[in-house]
Amino acid sequence: MSNEAYSEGDLRNTGMSLKHDREWDYELDRIVDAVEERDAETVGLQFPEGLKRRGPKVADDIRELVGDDVRVLISGQPCYGACDLDTYLMKRTDVFVHFGHSPMKESAKIIYVPLFSNVKVTPIIEESLETLDPPADEPDVGLVTTAQHMNLYDEMRAYLEEEGYTVHTRRGDERLTHEGQVLGCNYASADVDANQILYVGGGKFHPLGLAMEHPDKHVVIADPVNNVVTVADTEKFMKQRYGAVHRAMDAQKWGVIFCTKIGQGRWEEAERILEDNDNAYLITMDEVTPDRLRNFDMDAFVNTGCPRITTDDGPRFHKPMLTPGEYDAAVGNKPLSEIGFDTFHDTW
Amino acid sequence: MSNEAYSEGDLRNTGMSLKHDREWDYELDRIVDAVEERDAETVGLQFPEGLKRRGPKVADDIRELVGDDVRVLISGQPCYGACDLDTYLMKRTDVFVHFGHSPMKESAKIIYVPLFSNVKVTPIIEESLETLDPPADEPDVGLVTTAQHMNLYDEMRAYLEEEGYTVHTRRGDERLTHEGQVLGCNYASADVDANQILYVGGGKFHPLGLAMEHPDKHVVIADPVNNVVTVADTEKFMKQRYGAVHRAMDAQKWGVIFCTKIGQGRWEEAERILEDNDNAYLITMDEVTPDRLRNFDMDAFVNTGCPRITTDDGPRFHKPMLTPGEYDAAVGNKPLSEIGFDTFHDTW
Repeated sequence: MSNEAYSEGDLRNTGMSLKHDREWDYELDRIVDAVEERDAETVGLQFPEGLKRRGPKVADDIRELVGDDVRVLISGQPCYGACDLDTYLMKRTDVFVHFGHSPMKESAKIIYVPLFSNVKVTPIIEESLETLDPPADEPDVGLVTTAQHMNLYDEMRAYLEEEGYTVHTRRGDERLTHEGQVLGCNYASADVDANQILYVGGGKFHPLGLAMEHPDKHVVIADPVNNVVTVADTEKFMKQRYGAVHRAMDAQKWGVIFCTKIGQGRWEEAERILEDNDNAYLITMDEVTPDRLRNFDMDAFVNTGCPRITTDDGPRFHKPMLTPGEYDAAVGNKPLSEIGFDTFHDTW
Repeated sequence: MSNEAYSEGDLRNTGMSLKHDREWDYELDRIVDAVEERDAETVGLQFPEGLKRRGPKVADDIRELVGDDVRVLISGQPCYGACDLDTYLMKRTDVFVHFGHSPMKESAKIIYVPLFSNVKVTPIIEESLETLDPPADEPDVGLVTTAQHMNLYDEMRAYLEEEGYTVHTRRGDERLTHEGQVLGCNYASADVDANQILYVGGGKFHPLGLAMEHPDKHVVIADPVNNVVTVADTEKFMKQRYGAVHRAMDAQKWGVIFCTKIGQGRWEEAERILEDNDNAYLITMDEVTPDRLRNFDMDAFVNTGCPRITTDDGPRFHKPMLTPGEYDAAVGNKPLSEIGFDTFHDTW
């Protein structure tokens, strides 16, 4: 996602870029140990967008500990999630450190440094009790959060249990590292036996995805970063989605986007659409942006990569941009009423 | 370069994206032969930005000739020059075709299809005679053009000779495929024994680079695409460059950009600056855009990659963006009067 427009679910509203004085533990010792162990000459560092400004300081700290003969390289590639692994830098450095995202799959080559927020969560959960159905009426509640608050997950659960709730948690699937964790593209951890879900975390990006995938559930957002409790409302998003599908119904030429990023390549999905449609053309790319598609003479696009680019950035593209499921509705393969959130369940 | 702002030297003003009814020969037979010879299952196609809209038609033509079992993939990566080779797609397809740019280096893996403009050049050269110094006063003239008019180079030379000029031509260096060819980053073909240079081609992007590299020469632009004759004037550009250097003189923290694209990786140049400056941090990336650098907390940047991003897109970055030579002036390694155009002479 680029910086032109800020949609409601935008990652940049999650508080990652707020100027709160938060402390992060970069686990420098673990990095230095790896440098010594591997006799490394080069160290690659990759930060999520909101922490890129910390890069020079972290590089300084590492250089001080490992000596001048080790070259530190910082990735300048966009990084909004676990998929955005800089494989170029990874392959070309002796030690490669990816900060702030859980691994989709472990690799001996990569050091994943989780970055846990030091923002307290219980005050905002307490506030959210006014918005959740009370345990007397509705004892069941699902509990989910993001990687950066994962360290307080047990505390969240204990608090809700003390208040009288039966807390339902699960580790969604292989794409997720932790119990109760959600990703922008995967809400399987909310697939629990409860009609209400409490999401604890910054911003609306994740809970909006959650509510789109689970339209029958009541999703309460306890945001400890912006200190606010709200309810996820997908109405605006769903209107946009229906609008995009309708506009694509007359499309003759379809661009089918295959994303080359790790964790986003759904080749079978792309192949299926190409087999289905003689007027579909396969376009391969890493970053899927409006700029990059503007010069293609297509009537509509189907994005088999990150669903959040489709749903959140969709209105910024010059032609309708659909998920594979929405494509099927647009060409009449299935009824419009059956379109749902485009979730990702595979790992890389 | 992205689509946000159009600078004077912008590639998109070269006529490549004009809607003139130009015919291109995509050399389909050569592609089909390669598919059959290699028993290919996949064909990758890469077009420059201005020709991406032709992609579906070319894919259709190929599909018709090779049969349904061959999968055609179109690159969606940005493509403004010979450096922008989509190596991901190249490695993953049996036949990979790059349209419209000369190869920097031949590779058996890649089919380079030159695309020659069918626009006539002699009428505009005739018109340019009024702007060139007449042969009686100044018999010597250098002659340069771009890849898309290369097929008419002999005709251009013959015309000027008939008019009484001594035409000086050369093949610049290894980075250039043809005699008289210029690239956005290389004007060695204009390094001839003549005070005036005639550039024949669309837009101002190339002749402005030429005039920056050869400030002592009078550069006349004969643009057969937009049908206009002008003189390259670098004053606005040079003011921008001096301004950027001045603004960077107080910089503490420097981001040193190493571009990971084929043909743009000047590692020694990056290393030199890192050795020179303890407050320099190495940042690696493929596309160098304002968006990608905005989150880095740097006071200034040095771009060791494409010089045209520095000089043409420079004002769009949030902090001063310098060439390596300009960096040296900003930190006092050499006098400001010695800054020049940042030319590329290596191949990949």
